[in-house]
Amino acid sequence: MVGRSVGVVTPQRMVFEEPLVLRSGAVLPRYELVYETYGELNAAKSNAVLVCHALSGSHHVAGYYADDPRNVGWWDNFVGPGKPLDTRKFFVIGVNNVGGCFGSTGPRSIDPTTGEPYGSRFPFVTVEDWVEAQARLADRLGIAEFAAVIGGSLGGMQALSWALQFPDRVRHVLAIATTPKLSAQNIAFNEVARQAIMSDPDFHGGDYYRYGVVPKRGLMLARMIGHITYLSDDAMAEKFGRTLKYGEVRFSYDVEFEIESYLRYQGEKFSRYFDANTYLLTTRALDYFDPAAEYGGDLAQAFARAEAEFFVLSFSTDWRFSPVRSREIVAALVHSEKRVSYLEIESRAGHDSFLLEHPHYHAAVRAYLNGVRV
Amino acid sequence: MVGRSVGVVTPQRMVFEEPLVLRSGAVLPRYELVYETYGELNAAKSNAVLVCHALSGSHHVAGYYADDPRNVGWWDNFVGPGKPLDTRKFFVIGVNNVGGCFGSTGPRSIDPTTGEPYGSRFPFVTVEDWVEAQARLADRLGIAEFAAVIGGSLGGMQALSWALQFPDRVRHVLAIATTPKLSAQNIAFNEVARQAIMSDPDFHGGDYYRYGVVPKRGLMLARMIGHITYLSDDAMAEKFGRTLKYGEVRFSYDVEFEIESYLRYQGEKFSRYFDANTYLLTTRALDYFDPAAEYGGDLAQAFARAEAEFFVLSFSTDWRFSPVRSREIVAALVHSEKRVSYLEIESRAGHDSFLLEHPHYHAAVRAYLNGVRV
Repeated sequence: MVGRSVGVVTPQRMVFEEPLVLRSGAVLPRYELVYETYGELNAAKSNAVLVCHALSGSHHVAGYYADDPRNVGWWDNFVGPGKPLDTRKFFVIGVNNVGGCFGSTGPRSIDPTTGEPYGSRFPFVTVEDWVEAQARLADRLGIAEFAAVIGGSLGGMQALSWALQFPDRVRHVLAIATTPKLSAQNIAFNEVARQAIMSDPDFHGGDYYRYGVVPKRGLMLARMIGHITYLSDDAMAEKFGRTLKYGEVRFSYDVEFEIESYLRYQGEKFSRYFDANTYLLTTRALDYFDPAAEYGGDLAQAFARAEAEFFVLSFSTDWRFSPVRSREIVAALVHSEKRVSYLEIESRAGHDSFLLEHPHYHAAVRAYLNGVRV
Repeated sequence: MVGRSVGVVTPQRMVFEEPLVLRSGAVLPRYELVYETYGELNAAKSNAVLVCHALSGSHHVAGYYADDPRNVGWWDNFVGPGKPLDTRKFFVIGVNNVGGCFGSTGPRSIDPTTGEPYGSRFPFVTVEDWVEAQARLADRLGIAEFAAVIGGSLGGMQALSWALQFPDRVRHVLAIATTPKLSAQNIAFNEVARQAIMSDPDFHGGDYYRYGVVPKRGLMLARMIGHITYLSDDAMAEKFGRTLKYGEVRFSYDVEFEIESYLRYQGEKFSRYFDANTYLLTTRALDYFDPAAEYGGDLAQAFARAEAEFFVLSFSTDWRFSPVRSREIVAALVHSEKRVSYLEIESRAGHDSFLLEHPHYHAAVRAYLNGVRV
């Protein structure tokens, strides 16, 4: 890995007493955000970069915890001294979104009006709501304008939305492996995942906390479905193929093929730490994202108000948010006379590529960010 | 639709008292097969065609029942007088496979040794076992040799296997939208579907019959996942896109998008008639099919013993069993010096295309079958 780790990091917490009016019309009267920062904010406060997380991500983007050194940030290969997002130059912020399950106010948090976890009463949140909340965090940190907002997948949607919601507060947007809106197939996969969770008898209509259980089976299934869409067919073939766990067919519903073992392991692990309500909220935020909707589907028109420069990246074998979807973003930006660079990276790893260390990908981001003035 | 319906049909039943030794080593001491026939067997008994069904299919291939005229066979557009598989020329047989849930001996049947439904004790069945059982049915019907064996998807695997297991009993094989073996991704989707069923508390380890319940939630999820893989991304986009059921976002986990409504409907319907144990058995039969395995993965060598002529068809947007997989079959057949025709049909409908009326597809099958001597 090129570059060093940011080292030991400590999550911070910010309390917001101003109500957050959500796109759904609901109001969060009070909320907290957990976040981490890496690098130093310069005197001009012009070198801040916001990293937005995707479905299973969090504020813990880079580094590790003193008391848990194996808990390394989800984008540690990307953020650090000498890494593509270089913390010697940039002040980087990672924040757990509202509705999340890693410390920010979410369905697991205590609803002050009832003294119980929000559960099913937690309001729907959208990409736009997250951006709004992130902007308030920036306010409190004294950051008037981000040098860049960066994200992959759902994080990329937030990065795009920044340019539309706060045109004068973001100079560069890096939108990686993302889409301007989900396809019917994308929504279909989300729907099956949600049905898996909601039909789990341990879901209790979203109020499982009070029963001391979690809809573990549903979460496992949701994560297994997710993993299939994160990996390319090629990557799965290379990594697992039809390899049998015991070298021969045993005529059993236990694990026969290595791919089964992998999926069960991933599902089991996920179900131990991720909150089911957060999963539901987040997939709905994905479904709903469609900045062109209020412009009659005209994405170029939606982008008209943006002032940022854009760097759009996609990966050749990503079939969840394929290069075609990124090219829609690029075409709309071009039609809208924005400055945009686009790179389609050859990669075998599918949607997951955006999280992996890939020389061409990382070199391109590094080069782009080298050119960002702070 | 070109051609007419075969009209009213009546399922028949054949009892087999000779034990069927399965590939797993298990033995079915006695079993029954339900089947239907269309057209007339000629005096030379040289015009018989076997149609093999896929995951959710049955013996009811064409026509309708006198007491249930809306229950039309699953391939009624394909089989009948003047249709691509013309019953004026051919004597066509449809049979529900062993392990099925439409009348042939399966997990729902009474195990004579216990007087209770087989349930979890029903043995694993393979494509090869099905072909073996079909051959015994042919014996009893006096059919020494099939003019053709035809199938799509899992049915195509059976058609291919016929040429390998009974080389001198099949003159033509039509293998449609199929694959010589599942990919890791194919197995992964099957595994998620199985986990959905098996983790449903109403599954009771496969012995849900004795509790008077069925693992309905699991079956629904399995079918929803299946449907996503049967349709192409394009077909879903065309058919549903992001169309909202109520014209606007309502911030709800109830149906918001039309695609959700479609999937839930399909899942619900399926869970009312399909047996969960049959689903498990059938997906495992899919997983296990790999005729090249005993030849060190050399498919051409596996085909060496075949004597049939082959017609392989695939559909451009089928991402479940893509044209690439059909080309593997064709390449192996060519290397094995077999006679093979191959056609890749342009179709937007994905894997489901093989069940649909498509002029080019149907014309090609019609032309091929016109050339089959009886």
